[in-house]
Amino acid sequence: MKIILVGASGIIGKAVAAELGQRHEVVRASRSGGDCPVDITDPESIRRLYEFVGAFDALVSTTGSVHFGPLADFTSAQFELGLHNKLMGQVNLVTIGLKHITDGGSFTLTSGLLNDEPIRLGVSAAMVNGALEGFVRGAAVELPRGLRINLVSPTVIEEALPDYAPFFRGTPAVPAKVAALGYAKSVEGAHNGRIYRIGWSRDA
Amino acid sequence: MKIILVGASGIIGKAVAAELGQRHEVVRASRSGGDCPVDITDPESIRRLYEFVGAFDALVSTTGSVHFGPLADFTSAQFELGLHNKLMGQVNLVTIGLKHITDGGSFTLTSGLLNDEPIRLGVSAAMVNGALEGFVRGAAVELPRGLRINLVSPTVIEEALPDYAPFFRGTPAVPAKVAALGYAKSVEGAHNGRIYRIGWSRDA
Repeated sequence: MKIILVGASGIIGKAVAAELGQRHEVVRASRSGGDCPVDITDPESIRRLYEFVGAFDALVSTTGSVHFGPLADFTSAQFELGLHNKLMGQVNLVTIGLKHITDGGSFTLTSGLLNDEPIRLGVSAAMVNGALEGFVRGAAVELPRGLRINLVSPTVIEEALPDYAPFFRGTPAVPAKVAALGYAKSVEGAHNGRIYRIGWSRDA
Repeated sequence: MKIILVGASGIIGKAVAAELGQRHEVVRASRSGGDCPVDITDPESIRRLYEFVGAFDALVSTTGSVHFGPLADFTSAQFELGLHNKLMGQVNLVTIGLKHITDGGSFTLTSGLLNDEPIRLGVSAAMVNGALEGFVRGAAVELPRGLRINLVSPTVIEEALPDYAPFFRGTPAVPAKVAALGYAKSVEGAHNGRIYRIGWSRDA
């Protein structure tokens, strides 16, 4: 398969490239470059990515930013960051990619644990993750041509603990290579509209 | 209790007013007026509502619009409608209301079944409902002063079937007065961060 990986330079992206690159052609895209630069907040940039790549069989996104801060101080602009970047950036990868992806292809997006396991400062992440779950479930019933879409919701990643450990005390981390398996299951499996919650015995 | 009801002129809003009005003072707000007009897409209008009402004990929202249309044709502007109206409109009712609500008060928002039970044309509703679930769970862990927040996710309402039946074949409807009980449970109970899925044996 020819797989476009957006967010290829991140911790999870690198692990997904290592996992899927063993069996498939992976086109690495990220804000900073890779095989092709892309800014997911700019639909024109997304269109250029798809035109650069041509026909492809799977789109994997492991990217997206949200603002972290106290609920009481959250501004509309801070909520908008998550809505325009992690949410609509990934949604636009799908809606624009629909015109380019081959029959039977798949889209795999990334959310995270914070809507299931909320933390202080994480209200925007929780909102955006929930929105991605709804979008994936809603899109799954409308996809034409045997296309599929799934969502990977990784728990805290071991390699990210130096930055994130204080926010996730008590949450068992997993290595990025374990999270990467969720993307392989989505791309190489047959599921549609599924949420893969990656982690140790996570409640939904 | 003094309860602000936003969306008071809608089918669910009227049923909530009838249920809660038996035991509490209900201030009816809606786009078209009631006791106080409010446009939830305009933070200034929300601020004026709270200044008009003064101290209050509960905010119930039974309002919010999204666009319905085929996934393949969905534009960014059509997604933005749901994000700015049903999602951020209700979120802003909470973030702005935090400054006015009395200790121990509650916020109760409204989503819907389409993230659990997606239908064709409903991808934006599914996204926004999921976002509201994430927001409510995220906000619940940060609320100060004994405040609470819950979400009511009603199934199809019997009184709305004349307009909506073709979209929800096979989904059992409930009368608005049954959905109204979810709001009473949230306002008069002790829960925080809960999603009340109103309907007949609904899977999550």
